[in-house]
Amino acid sequence: MVEKKNRKTKKLTVDKSIEGRRIDWISRLLGPPPAGELSLGIGDDAAVWKPRRGYRAVLTVDSQSEGTHFLPGWLSPEEIGRRAVSSSISDLAAMNARPALVLVSLLLESERTESYFRKLYRGIAAACEDYGALIAGGNISRGPLSITVTCIGEARESDITSRDGLRNGDELWVTGTPGLANLGLLHLRDRIFGGSSSPEIRQAVAAFKKPRARIVEAAALGRGWLPHAAIDLSDGLYKDLLHLLNSSSNQGGPEVGIVLDKQAIETLQPLGKLCSKVNRSPCQAALEGGEDYELLLAIPPGRATTARRRAFDRKFDLPMTRIGTVTSDQPGLWLKTDSSGSLKQLTGNGFEHF
Amino acid sequence: MVEKKNRKTKKLTVDKSIEGRRIDWISRLLGPPPAGELSLGIGDDAAVWKPRRGYRAVLTVDSQSEGTHFLPGWLSPEEIGRRAVSSSISDLAAMNARPALVLVSLLLESERTESYFRKLYRGIAAACEDYGALIAGGNISRGPLSITVTCIGEARESDITSRDGLRNGDELWVTGTPGLANLGLLHLRDRIFGGSSSPEIRQAVAAFKKPRARIVEAAALGRGWLPHAAIDLSDGLYKDLLHLLNSSSNQGGPEVGIVLDKQAIETLQPLGKLCSKVNRSPCQAALEGGEDYELLLAIPPGRATTARRRAFDRKFDLPMTRIGTVTSDQPGLWLKTDSSGSLKQLTGNGFEHF
Repeated sequence: MVEKKNRKTKKLTVDKSIEGRRIDWISRLLGPPPAGELSLGIGDDAAVWKPRRGYRAVLTVDSQSEGTHFLPGWLSPEEIGRRAVSSSISDLAAMNARPALVLVSLLLESERTESYFRKLYRGIAAACEDYGALIAGGNISRGPLSITVTCIGEARESDITSRDGLRNGDELWVTGTPGLANLGLLHLRDRIFGGSSSPEIRQAVAAFKKPRARIVEAAALGRGWLPHAAIDLSDGLYKDLLHLLNSSSNQGGPEVGIVLDKQAIETLQPLGKLCSKVNRSPCQAALEGGEDYELLLAIPPGRATTARRRAFDRKFDLPMTRIGTVTSDQPGLWLKTDSSGSLKQLTGNGFEHF
Repeated sequence: MVEKKNRKTKKLTVDKSIEGRRIDWISRLLGPPPAGELSLGIGDDAAVWKPRRGYRAVLTVDSQSEGTHFLPGWLSPEEIGRRAVSSSISDLAAMNARPALVLVSLLLESERTESYFRKLYRGIAAACEDYGALIAGGNISRGPLSITVTCIGEARESDITSRDGLRNGDELWVTGTPGLANLGLLHLRDRIFGGSSSPEIRQAVAAFKKPRARIVEAAALGRGWLPHAAIDLSDGLYKDLLHLLNSSSNQGGPEVGIVLDKQAIETLQPLGKLCSKVNRSPCQAALEGGEDYELLLAIPPGRATTARRRAFDRKFDLPMTRIGTVTSDQPGLWLKTDSSGSLKQLTGNGFEHF
């Protein structure tokens, strides 16, 4: 049947289109996956994965695109890659799930250089490694720069924190400094702090450029502090507080409200110092901010003991601040403006005036 | 503590930004998920899912963006939505996995109307329903139109077909007509068939506009035909054959080659009729095509019995064609050009000349 059997056969290789070469490069960058949970990874049509016995899969997706989430020149390609991974994995932190796998869909203009592509992807891969997540698959095609990161985590059902568990008396705690990333963004966009620099300004810019999903912190808090509900701060404290309230009331539980402590919010560092430079209210900056990827947690009263707070403090270089209380006295979002306990209701179009 | 307890509290609602309203609309469109596998779906930070006992999770992602995968005016918004889902789910068909969940990340320019958004999303939702997949989460943000669909399926490990199982003597079978969608695309782009229309031209255009992931067909073939390897035809028959060959040789198995049967490829309907209109070779059209989302399978010799072929034919309105054979006689990709058995090697830069 075979006529030319003895002639030298040309070595066949996979299509060496630019995408094919990039997939080869990614495979070399990542190396083979560790034996175990991922039985089929990059290079086939799909990846095959088995959550550990007794665990649930926890799934989320997030996209970052140039022109919408950042402008050219704001971030290095490595930072763009890292940020896309962190913003997506942050949703797993909110649920207290361990990141296991990541799928990356990359759109990239044809005129981007290979060097740019590689820096971007190195940022993606480095962030995944930091969080302990394997890149299990993906997709590269032409288009205006955007990175879509799907994260697949695992958690025991009983460990998962959702948005809808607020209960009367819960204490509201935040990690880090809500509003800081937004000040950094405003500085990148509008130079709100002028041409000068300071540790606080650099901290704000870094909060925007290099957010860090609070995976390990969420695991520690999940063990000792036992949150009733959690959310990651991507839309800003005000909107994310409303998400918590609405999720809880949608679940048909008793309607609860939240009383925020203005003084506590004003102590968030370095908001006060930065806001004083630009004549803003620190409270407003915290409420209106976004993309901090910090955690907002409803902690049962009595759980945030001094011992636990000290232990958290020793382990993580990250402030924890109690900024409010869940109340069944009335629904809605309220601000306690002074020590006498007088309250102002915060609403969508009015909260900026305080 | 609460001073203004008795005053009327304003009803709080989630931030009614355009994205918030769209998420509400999607939640109403989809309704609550059926009880069972999805314990937490749209509306929280992430979805929680449990594959059935004994099953593996199978994961893939694909993006479709305007300007790269289609041009404005080619597809209705419903078709864009459906196509994005089908192209991603097709990777699960290649692995013989059942689609369970979908995560949808949508970038959309701010000037698109709500009507456009809703048509697009109805297409996404309708396709997911057709394939039996639940939309478990997603993301909407501003950006040049692109849809990234992550599919999570499940399969028993033993049922999964990968790309790397080619064995000497396997028969290569394809579903449907490779190359047809590409002719449809060329007609949409360049009007290659002129201003006239015919059932065959409409069939080609429909193959591009409305591809269908071969999920149910893959399940049927997996049960009786027991494929050693499979891939979905997204890059075109030539490139996807190379993917099969390279995957098998990367796995360290004995190096195999593929002999394609030119006459069998030329029988694929309605390639011959369409190609004769534009002076193309049907074989070249099939090899160079792409985005058919048909299946290419390596079937062990003897499995594709007449009875099984008839049963498949009765069940599905879809031709199955044997287009080649796996051989250990020599590595590479070969075309049997006539009944005497003479072979021509197909290579990346030469295969178009036959």
